[in-house]
Amino acid sequence: MPEQRELIFKPIGYVRTKVSLVPRHWSRSEVEGEIIIEPQYQEGLRDIHRGEKLVVIFCFHQSPPFSPDKLIQKPPHREEALGVFSTCSPVRPNPIGLSVLDVVAVSGNIIQVRRIDMIDGTPVLDLKPYVAYSNSGEREN
Amino acid sequence: MPEQRELIFKPIGYVRTKVSLVPRHWSRSEVEGEIIIEPQYQEGLRDIHRGEKLVVIFCFHQSPPFSPDKLIQKPPHREEALGVFSTCSPVRPNPIGLSVLDVVAVSGNIIQVRRIDMIDGTPVLDLKPYVAYSNSGEREN
Repeated sequence: MPEQRELIFKPIGYVRTKVSLVPRHWSRSEVEGEIIIEPQYQEGLRDIHRGEKLVVIFCFHQSPPFSPDKLIQKPPHREEALGVFSTCSPVRPNPIGLSVLDVVAVSGNIIQVRRIDMIDGTPVLDLKPYVAYSNSGEREN
Repeated sequence: MPEQRELIFKPIGYVRTKVSLVPRHWSRSEVEGEIIIEPQYQEGLRDIHRGEKLVVIFCFHQSPPFSPDKLIQKPPHREEALGVFSTCSPVRPNPIGLSVLDVVAVSGNIIQVRRIDMIDGTPVLDLKPYVAYSNSGEREN
């Protein structure tokens, strides 16, 4: 196993939403809010448009530290306990989250989105285009 | 804009593949290889099985530092230049990658996968179950 060095990232922005309870998983959420991007990166938002799906990679910044007793967890809406890498739990070795949101509007450095399942103030690490998995090997996005 | 503190992650493992050139995007790649997970996390792989799709979040550890001239980039297989957040470029504000791979086999702390588009030695940050986007709001995975 090669030496695993720490990797340091700096958020490119954060999530703003008025919902105080953690919404349900993005695939079931209808919550709206905004992703506020650092002005220095605004030009990189140029090709994000209303109606698109947007992959948001973020940090579960309020998760407790991971501990070995969390290697198996029972998700709240499932019957069985699962290995952590088969869950979307915010308590995981690296507290990284991934959501696919709907773009409602883009204005300057602010992206209005629907399907939010993050809490207000969540640090955003990256935005990516949504690429659907397809057995044909053809890219769909 | 709230203060954006640095976030520190430690890889949970790394990619092993014999391919020396960077393969094409996972949605078109047929490359096989392995994800080697730190033994301390092996129990968390318990529910990952052959035939499943696996979301892998990793670090483009050999990317050059991001600079403002990379806010707009022309992807190699596209005609037009795009804002960086609409591309899968490895040169992005945080060098985080996301691939959806096919699980070929799991043995101990090693996951054999197909569709690899990372280079040998790539640090892996997280593994997640694949959740397809669906307009019905129902979860499919």
